[in-house]
Amino acid sequence: MRYEESIIEGRNAVIEAFRAGKVIDKLFILDGAQDGPIQTIKREAKKRDTMVRFVTKERLDQLSETGKHQGVVAYTAAYTYAEVDEILAAARSRNEAPFVFLLDNIEDPHNLGAIIRTANLAGAHGVIIPKNRAAGLTAAVARASAGALNYTPVARVTNLAQTMEALKKEGLWFVCADMDGTMMYQLDLKGPIGLVIGNEGNGVGRLVREKCDFVASIPMKGDIDSLNASVAAGVLAYEIVRQRML
Amino acid sequence: MRYEESIIEGRNAVIEAFRAGKVIDKLFILDGAQDGPIQTIKREAKKRDTMVRFVTKERLDQLSETGKHQGVVAYTAAYTYAEVDEILAAARSRNEAPFVFLLDNIEDPHNLGAIIRTANLAGAHGVIIPKNRAAGLTAAVARASAGALNYTPVARVTNLAQTMEALKKEGLWFVCADMDGTMMYQLDLKGPIGLVIGNEGNGVGRLVREKCDFVASIPMKGDIDSLNASVAAGVLAYEIVRQRML
Repeated sequence: MRYEESIIEGRNAVIEAFRAGKVIDKLFILDGAQDGPIQTIKREAKKRDTMVRFVTKERLDQLSETGKHQGVVAYTAAYTYAEVDEILAAARSRNEAPFVFLLDNIEDPHNLGAIIRTANLAGAHGVIIPKNRAAGLTAAVARASAGALNYTPVARVTNLAQTMEALKKEGLWFVCADMDGTMMYQLDLKGPIGLVIGNEGNGVGRLVREKCDFVASIPMKGDIDSLNASVAAGVLAYEIVRQRML
Repeated sequence: MRYEESIIEGRNAVIEAFRAGKVIDKLFILDGAQDGPIQTIKREAKKRDTMVRFVTKERLDQLSETGKHQGVVAYTAAYTYAEVDEILAAARSRNEAPFVFLLDNIEDPHNLGAIIRTANLAGAHGVIIPKNRAAGLTAAVARASAGALNYTPVARVTNLAQTMEALKKEGLWFVCADMDGTMMYQLDLKGPIGLVIGNEGNGVGRLVREKCDFVASIPMKGDIDSLNASVAAGVLAYEIVRQRML
């Protein structure tokens, strides 16, 4: 299986892609363009929470493969996204307590791929990412996931904090990592759990952090501030694995 | 502090760099070049185990920043390497049992940087890498290490297996990760220890593996083969941290 990110160029092609229900990851529109088809594209993008960047003609010319972008270039995801319900259903079908990763704006495609890889091997039932700002399921993510994207469902949601609220009603507890938390070995991480991983630079956002039931700290014996995001995700995920095996 | 990889171009500049004791990470020489200065450069490179690549004129033109490479382009490391003895001395000065990472040909600079970052935060006293083939301490590695390169010494050795033999005489035990090993939770990883991390694609080489006292396995509950190398290093390193804290 090959992983390809595909580019759609031109007004009609992009409008058709939206109408066909394709998942558009990134949308580049000529800054200042105001005509009818462009307005339609902006409206469709808004409806689906698609990230839009307004750029210069030179930038569009660079991105374009055909040279005929007409002021619009869209990137579609290499993979289709799952629904959160499918992730819970996967846990039920395996007769396991749900174990879900929630990524609060992981930006680096290598980190995102490595985390999905870890989610697969740690036995998690799925990964939830926010629609905006964060990295989407591009070809680079698929490569870094080393095939895990073929097995581990990834859902995209508009508001991570709201999704956590809904999942709490399904019995999940949420744990995020932060330096001022409780040493992870002292927490009980055995039940239905959501592991929250923060952004590479800024950590977990305030609204998401407020929804966390536990804040776990990883022992830090060195001189610098924090582990790489995908390494931190791996260390915490495997503390959950260890406790579940006891 | 800025991390810069510097390029040295031209025969005399490269010869002078060698004579000044600069650490050259990568050396590109025009394929087929045989004159005196080039022979001198090859001889110096051999003496210091510098990796040499013989390339076309077109490749050298691409690499060159000045356009005056005269058939030779060298990259110097952004950091100087430590000696293995300094790593052991660091452990003694902290009155701790030595904890060392050994990287058996990590090729990706992001992985190398992330692993050095993990070594720092897990409280390891240093990192040992082989001289040939593996990634060196370039600017990309320094960036991915998030500053850890300023604190955690990295030593480069000609033969990893021989270095392990020497370190065994200092009381170290060696553990590497592999799927067919003993579940890591069942191993005693508390003493003076060397954690061996294998290459991204091929794992730990045969000669190095034969020197390992333990083979540890990380629980694998998913569908794919292996964790990302820097994530696997983090998970194993933190199992060592956990046992040392007991």
